[in-house]
Amino acid sequence: MSRERGVAWYALLRQVRPLVLNSARVVEASLSSQGLTVGMRAVLEVLVESGDSTVPAIAARLQIARQGVQRHVDDLRARGYVGVRANPAHRRSVLVAATGPGAEAMRRIREDELSALSALAPGCTREDIEVAVRVVSALNDEIRQLAAGGRP
Amino acid sequence: MSRERGVAWYALLRQVRPLVLNSARVVEASLSSQGLTVGMRAVLEVLVESGDSTVPAIAARLQIARQGVQRHVDDLRARGYVGVRANPAHRRSVLVAATGPGAEAMRRIREDELSALSALAPGCTREDIEVAVRVVSALNDEIRQLAAGGRP
Repeated sequence: MSRERGVAWYALLRQVRPLVLNSARVVEASLSSQGLTVGMRAVLEVLVESGDSTVPAIAARLQIARQGVQRHVDDLRARGYVGVRANPAHRRSVLVAATGPGAEAMRRIREDELSALSALAPGCTREDIEVAVRVVSALNDEIRQLAAGGRP
Repeated sequence: MSRERGVAWYALLRQVRPLVLNSARVVEASLSSQGLTVGMRAVLEVLVESGDSTVPAIAARLQIARQGVQRHVDDLRARGYVGVRANPAHRRSVLVAATGPGAEAMRRIREDELSALSALAPGCTREDIEVAVRVVSALNDEIRQLAAGGRP
């Protein structure tokens, strides 16, 4: 457990906050032509990937406030991208579901993003990127446990 | 520029927001015993690493609001960790500087963090972590330019 390992992790962690802020700006700019926001996109993505869900469950998954999720759900409903229905498991918490047009919008957004992403940083090989994904995932798993108060 | 590259970048980008949120929680918990916050720590770090600076310059560097930086500076002053003095270059914007105790506090915080970080995710080699740092830095550079409205 050398100090150099700590220095390398620290160098990695310093990159992530600006990456989150700047990538959210890029995504927001690209979504704005479709009248969507980063928050609406994130909620729609959860519903398309993981199926129908409640507002509290979406909030927990995205680590954003329930009020924010509720607002995004309202905005997505106004666009016809999600619908709500009674929740058989819980009377007070309706289920939110992506509609056909919502799923199709998400598919198009995703394809546009993948196409833009594939051209980025050509100096990194696909193998390099895959190492980075594995490393960042491993770090993420341990830091999530530490944040929850456990030991990794 | 294969679609698989885009998929790999996307997998990486999905990791970074939870990593930022959870690592801030871990750092906050560790700082709270010293009466410091993540924001105060970030401001102190900029001053120790890059020398005396103004509130607007610190805000730009950290991508946080000036009012937030001003509050952190006030809190750090109350602790004796920073001082302010007239700015020869700009009459209305004082220079903020880390004090000796501030620099020493930052040094201790950093050593504690490096020691905790060095033990994380032992399944990742130092070489793996260094690949990840290089990949994330390259992505960051391009996304920063895109966010600023340019092309990478």
